[in-house]
Amino acid sequence: MRNCLIAQSGGPTAAINATLAGIVKANQLNKFYEKIYGALNGLEGIFSLSLVDLTDMSELENEILIQTPASALGSCRYKLKKDNPLDFEKIFAVLDRYDIETMFYIGGNDSMDTVASLDQYAREHAIKGHRFVGCPKTIDNDLMHIDHTPGFGSAAKYIASTALSTWQDYSVYRRREVFILETMGRDAGWLAASACLSGIVDILILPEVAFEKAVFLAEVKRCLEEKNKCYVVVSEGCKYADGTYIAAADSADDSFDHAILGGASGALKNMIIESELSLRVRVLNLSNAQRCSVTDLSKCDISESFELGKYAHSCSTDKSFSGKMVALRRKQQEEYEVEYFTIEADKIANFVRSFPLEWVLPNYRGVSNDALEYMRPLIKGSIKILYEDGLPAYVKPYYLR
Amino acid sequence: MRNCLIAQSGGPTAAINATLAGIVKANQLNKFYEKIYGALNGLEGIFSLSLVDLTDMSELENEILIQTPASALGSCRYKLKKDNPLDFEKIFAVLDRYDIETMFYIGGNDSMDTVASLDQYAREHAIKGHRFVGCPKTIDNDLMHIDHTPGFGSAAKYIASTALSTWQDYSVYRRREVFILETMGRDAGWLAASACLSGIVDILILPEVAFEKAVFLAEVKRCLEEKNKCYVVVSEGCKYADGTYIAAADSADDSFDHAILGGASGALKNMIIESELSLRVRVLNLSNAQRCSVTDLSKCDISESFELGKYAHSCSTDKSFSGKMVALRRKQQEEYEVEYFTIEADKIANFVRSFPLEWVLPNYRGVSNDALEYMRPLIKGSIKILYEDGLPAYVKPYYLR
Repeated sequence: MRNCLIAQSGGPTAAINATLAGIVKANQLNKFYEKIYGALNGLEGIFSLSLVDLTDMSELENEILIQTPASALGSCRYKLKKDNPLDFEKIFAVLDRYDIETMFYIGGNDSMDTVASLDQYAREHAIKGHRFVGCPKTIDNDLMHIDHTPGFGSAAKYIASTALSTWQDYSVYRRREVFILETMGRDAGWLAASACLSGIVDILILPEVAFEKAVFLAEVKRCLEEKNKCYVVVSEGCKYADGTYIAAADSADDSFDHAILGGASGALKNMIIESELSLRVRVLNLSNAQRCSVTDLSKCDISESFELGKYAHSCSTDKSFSGKMVALRRKQQEEYEVEYFTIEADKIANFVRSFPLEWVLPNYRGVSNDALEYMRPLIKGSIKILYEDGLPAYVKPYYLR
Repeated sequence: MRNCLIAQSGGPTAAINATLAGIVKANQLNKFYEKIYGALNGLEGIFSLSLVDLTDMSELENEILIQTPASALGSCRYKLKKDNPLDFEKIFAVLDRYDIETMFYIGGNDSMDTVASLDQYAREHAIKGHRFVGCPKTIDNDLMHIDHTPGFGSAAKYIASTALSTWQDYSVYRRREVFILETMGRDAGWLAASACLSGIVDILILPEVAFEKAVFLAEVKRCLEEKNKCYVVVSEGCKYADGTYIAAADSADDSFDHAILGGASGALKNMIIESELSLRVRVLNLSNAQRCSVTDLSKCDISESFELGKYAHSCSTDKSFSGKMVALRRKQQEEYEVEYFTIEADKIANFVRSFPLEWVLPNYRGVSNDALEYMRPLIKGSIKILYEDGLPAYVKPYYLR
């Protein structure tokens, strides 16, 4: 019996630890690996031999891990240097040293690129005995070939719930007022669109639709004339037709060449103030809170994320299984249900799935019923949260122990 | 049997409707008023005769009302013109017209000023037959003579929970990073201090302590040198020694001469970037979300807010009871328990209770154990939330029906 290793990478979500917990639990129920190692801070932990032993995680720790937001193993944005074999050699040396049969990598499309590259390197160099399995996660819901991504449902539930609550709040005064909610999502509008599940969004600005200031202001004016109020939701990645973000990037690019976004709501606020449509404009940029809120976890999301972990473990017992990502798709039937399948990691890597244009209503008026029907099951159900002194109980991050 | 009228005023909270529900429920259990009217948008609804009948609210509506954030009756910031009898004459005419024996006013210190003024006007003009009862609410926890204010516990729970979650989130990368969380609270630091219940706050900036940029930056530097991370919590109302806010007010004053605050976190971020202590500074301004989050409701807060409503109803059956506010105090005993009492509304009006300086640790290092022990019981317990399609069920605001 050999060992396995799990690492987490990319931006954390509120569900990424459920997948980790699922892999660990699956091995306890159906022992295939002697030891389960966790690498701290993704690839960095492999390079630095910073590993923890997760094999005998207690039932209680597993339960609390499931409800703990953000990567409990830590994360990294380190990108493999593909044209330089040094990174690969180092990784395979560590896998040999710890007798790792399978490496599970939980992450987004950059992480699937890592899975595909490691698998390809092994094949090209005829290295036997190590296999690579990807588990998806991203709140952005922008991975190809998967019905939706683990982490999206909980973020969507938090966003829609916050939209509903802040709408109740900003509505109480009769005065003219605009509220602007800003979500993450990079170049995909899924998260912003999820706010429409609340039923209160007047104007929705997605990255998929080129931003036109005049149309936007005309819509704000129409809402204010109709009811003195206007609730706007904007995605951080919104752009003008020429591709420039409506928010000036507020910092340098990160090492993945993703622009660090944020500030679209402030830009819209300034447009409204300058146009004198309303003097009162409240802004809420959900920032990191949208990917780590635990009291709004979606039961659907957490269950599926956990199951994907178990499924990944199960797939990995097939000795020819490598270079693939586990995924889920919706069954073609009335009632919502998913089935799990696998797909080559290189079909996921470096692609982005946009929010479908056919689901976007004209003039920023939100999304179609088809979009709502797609999203609604994903935010269904709540999980019972364990508390400690009035706050959700979390495992202490392994990288800080 | 005569009638009563309830109105809500000032900034909404997540618990203000629990008090409304408590008054209605008390009258159903122990009928004293023939009809319970709700005035829409506070005093404005009285002036415009916009009233709703709440007498026979269903059990289900009462339950959902309890978990509905923000003033379901709407709010206003209208301030009585004390030197002009016209406002008073109008109000008393409406009270006569609807045979209102008791007017309940749920609000903060400005609202208690209204209660005191109406009572005083009645006495000075020998107007009989109308009585005025105040019910406290404010997330700011800044009312005098009350152990804590309804609404504070839930806001504190949300803030501490968000601090804990975002700390888990920003910690996952090893890179140098500062996180800044901004809370409301106007000139009182209670809300910002509540973040310390999470146990992860490195630096806490309160309005009660004059801000010194050099000390702040030295503390940030110390944290970053120690662990490459620094979690800062700042109250919107933080000021330099000369009284100027560290955030430039971003809009005009409101009609109560309260500055509209917000932006302290951005100011701190700029200081850190300019000083080159860290290039990566994430900001989360909780904005309105902190006063309307429902999935983080504190059971202690909601139960007490509901009980205060029932207690107000009970007190009001005494025909000499007027010009007072219902309140609560902590019993002098080991285990947390409160008792209810009443106090003259004019002892509350226009005073602000600051966060005690003896609870503040030097060099912005947070609050003492005494402070934590004071706050801890207030965030205890969660209530079972009723959901609809994956989102918390709310009553439709009465002012939009």
